Amino acid sequence: MNGADRLISSLISCGVDTCFANPGTSEMHMVQAIDRSEDFHAILCLFEGVCTGAADGFGRMRGRPASTLLHLGAGLGNGIANLHNCRRAATPLLNIVGDHAIHHVAYDAPLTSDIEAVAKPVSSWIRTSRSSTSMDLDVWDAVQSTLSNHPDSLGNISTLIVPADCAWSESTERSLPPITQNLVAADPAKVEQVAQVIDSDTMILVDGNGLTEEGVKSAGRIAKKTGCRVFTPTFPARVESGPDLPLIHRLPYFPEQIIELLQPVQKLVLCGGAAPVSFFAYPSLPSHLVPDHCAVLQLAHRHEDVATTLQNLADSLGAKDYDPANGTRPEVPTSGETSVRSVATMLATRIPDDAIITGDSGGGGAAFPLMQRAVGHTWLNLTGGSIGDGGPVGVGAAVACPDRPVFALLGDGGAMYTNQFLWTAARENLNLTTVIFSNQQYNILEVEYLRTGVNEIGKRAASLFDLSNPQLDWVKLAEAQGVPAMRASTCEQFIDGLDASNSTDGPFLIEAMV
Amino acid sequence: MNGADRLISSLISCGVDTCFANPGTSEMHMVQAIDRSEDFHAILCLFEGVCTGAADGFGRMRGRPASTLLHLGAGLGNGIANLHNCRRAATPLLNIVGDHAIHHVAYDAPLTSDIEAVAKPVSSWIRTSRSSTSMDLDVWDAVQSTLSNHPDSLGNISTLIVPADCAWSESTERSLPPITQNLVAADPAKVEQVAQVIDSDTMILVDGNGLTEEGVKSAGRIAKKTGCRVFTPTFPARVESGPDLPLIHRLPYFPEQIIELLQPVQKLVLCGGAAPVSFFAYPSLPSHLVPDHCAVLQLAHRHEDVATTLQNLADSLGAKDYDPANGTRPEVPTSGETSVRSVATMLATRIPDDAIITGDSGGGGAAFPLMQRAVGHTWLNLTGGSIGDGGPVGVGAAVACPDRPVFALLGDGGAMYTNQFLWTAARENLNLTTVIFSNQQYNILEVEYLRTGVNEIGKRAASLFDLSNPQLDWVKLAEAQGVPAMRASTCEQFIDGLDASNSTDGPFLIEAMV
Repeated sequence: MNGADRLISSLISCGVDTCFANPGTSEMHMVQAIDRSEDFHAILCLFEGVCTGAADGFGRMRGRPASTLLHLGAGLGNGIANLHNCRRAATPLLNIVGDHAIHHVAYDAPLTSDIEAVAKPVSSWIRTSRSSTSMDLDVWDAVQSTLSNHPDSLGNISTLIVPADCAWSESTERSLPPITQNLVAADPAKVEQVAQVIDSDTMILVDGNGLTEEGVKSAGRIAKKTGCRVFTPTFPARVESGPDLPLIHRLPYFPEQIIELLQPVQKLVLCGGAAPVSFFAYPSLPSHLVPDHCAVLQLAHRHEDVATTLQNLADSLGAKDYDPANGTRPEVPTSGETSVRSVATMLATRIPDDAIITGDSGGGGAAFPLMQRAVGHTWLNLTGGSIGDGGPVGVGAAVACPDRPVFALLGDGGAMYTNQFLWTAARENLNLTTVIFSNQQYNILEVEYLRTGVNEIGKRAASLFDLSNPQLDWVKLAEAQGVPAMRASTCEQFIDGLDASNSTDGPFLIEAMV
Repeated sequence: MNGADRLISSLISCGVDTCFANPGTSEMHMVQAIDRSEDFHAILCLFEGVCTGAADGFGRMRGRPASTLLHLGAGLGNGIANLHNCRRAATPLLNIVGDHAIHHVAYDAPLTSDIEAVAKPVSSWIRTSRSSTSMDLDVWDAVQSTLSNHPDSLGNISTLIVPADCAWSESTERSLPPITQNLVAADPAKVEQVAQVIDSDTMILVDGNGLTEEGVKSAGRIAKKTGCRVFTPTFPARVESGPDLPLIHRLPYFPEQIIELLQPVQKLVLCGGAAPVSFFAYPSLPSHLVPDHCAVLQLAHRHEDVATTLQNLADSLGAKDYDPANGTRPEVPTSGETSVRSVATMLATRIPDDAIITGDSGGGGAAFPLMQRAVGHTWLNLTGGSIGDGGPVGVGAAVACPDRPVFALLGDGGAMYTNQFLWTAARENLNLTTVIFSNQQYNILEVEYLRTGVNEIGKRAASLFDLSNPQLDWVKLAEAQGVPAMRASTCEQFIDGLDASNSTDGPFLIEAMV
């Protein structure tokens, strides 16, 4: 047994049996160890941003980390953007990054780089192994850290760097203690204090495991009893939603909208959510969006046990039940051109119950309020604002939950960054339907450009938002990677696409012209 | 005039007028400034790795930096892998990275990250602007650093981080001193010392500007006079080559091959090149590949004036002339299946004179020794080993040299990482012919896997090298992004493809099945 074998067996014994991989020469001994193990599932991705995004999606659904297998600092670098999103989602994730043998680093061969420095901005735990004999303990520490409490902004990503000689040298078997996860609920005195003041002028901002089914139900009980409003941040990592659950709203995107929404609020209770700040800065708007007249009560941080805290608060209030959203499926638009609105409505009409939805940039977010009332589902948001996340997260969610249909609702601009996710979806025959909201532009940038105060967009500026020259052909881009696809310009075509996707065993892509 | 306007006008006055851009909201004021400037050329890329690779290609051809325009730490992160290659090429390059307004950073909005930390592993100069009024001096320092002498391993990349408020606040015009570049040739005494000992048991290792036309000619004079051998490192950033120039060989890739090659060498003169080390470490092979009996003489570092040093050495030796490679174009294979060998031969047969070739992973490198004897060209190598470089570098070279045909010779696996380069090639109507060596696998990994000592590749390991399930369709992948393309399985088809490419005004792709 060498260090690589010990690494893989330790991962398995720590509950990590899935790996999104793009290995190179320095990882060959780890690939051999994967080859020798029946219980470890390595999935090839053709770009590392797909590996890291998929591991994020897997971790969000399973609550346990997936691993990545990446090739030195450059390979890790390609994964940075989606690790940034993963950090913001606080998803447990373990990067395994191969490095040169320890004695070889000093020779500064072409692929040498400072891997710990590359890992630093996106990792809450980093270690470079120094010996094959302690590989098991390195793995245990790394996995344990992904499930430990870190300050919210640090995330739950561990990066374990494995020099090639630590993989190829001899190691021995040793048993490891179990991995533990201790989520702490808010102190009862704090719960009682909030219970005393909560009323219809209160907003509760819920995030973390407060957005599980149990958490949302408790929040609904509190809302029904007190008349308070319950919101999530604009982009929570994961929300359970549907007609049988209470409605839970999300904060809007633009700071003016949040300021207006918070104007009547006298008390803001932070239960997983953080006090809202503007996504970007603008010359004439504040960063911190809570009005001065509003008291802020910190009940639970996102990394704590928000769900139990909400349940304790509901119990303390004597809140017995909640009002479910109780909507019905909207009418299917049966004719007309596809638009963000009509596509969102059709999705709410036809997406199967218990689906997982991944969002990214683009029009997909418009489906959320409609789906909330129409169909039970899990929604995974783009948390960190780095577009190109929804496709890879969809891959990971589909691997984590093979019995649930997954829908990735993506803007065309965002999906281009990581279009290689389609190949892995085809290879693994994942039940993943991708909907491209194809408007042939970076639409948000046009909006933001006009918000800077100019009235029209000049030729050179427009060229930096425009994706129409040449026009991307998403049907060919999907078919090139083994994913069947069709284009929809009318509602009939889009419904046909959803039907085709439902009857297809494996991935499908619909390019919706909007 | 605001800080953004000052930024753009300062870039222009420092000689930087080309930008490979993927901006976001925090860069909107810079986009406005670009819109207002007639003399600044911003080119949209749909993935930041294309921006950084293209800027590398541009800088290698022009000898002056191009800039990138990237969106915060996540956007810069996507550019890291090709910045790593650029660092290894020592190409001058300037990253402009937008950040939140200075006052907004503390609020830790979703896209906030430690951008300086992301930049550190790939930058020899980093600064975050603190005021719109000193934006011009920040730009001057940044550009000057890209053309200054840094230790070889640091590279010549500057990263200037521009908080949004430094862009949107008022600034004033001010004149800047000129940018200077002082390359220092080796001390005459050192040249004389080498001239005394150089003989037929000597190898000169040339890199940096020693591989320009003038440098190569001087090296050829030295070789003819002394009988010494002249080599480049395995992957030099840029080599001028062709039948009118002396032959200059490149070091092989595997350490065993280099060890064998160096066995008879008694004196190794480093003239731009560094003492050869193994690309990767192997358990039974040394890292440092120079035999103990071989004396190493350091004549010039890569960042110094290697070309003048070689000329001085040639003069000192009284070396009058050189033997040109003097080959002829090989015969065109007129029938049979495409293979790495036949495709390389056809390229050497048909590539127009004065072409620029970019290499990456895959079989393309096989064309180099054939082309050296057949056709004058500039060859740009993958310097840092992070595959996915050749396409973007080709884009940048084509922008830098619109009058020269550019050929990107890419492996299918490598090209997938940054396939978005095709869109920019189409949008800018670049004279870029992409040849995909399509073997549907990470072939080098199969080779390296077998080098670890196993005799066969198990099912799970093979799945991590295999790109055939599903098979990538490069014709569709190109057409999806506006690039006309065809597949070639026979030599006739490949020649037809080259002819079609020659008669196409703009990019073309040939998928060669090998």
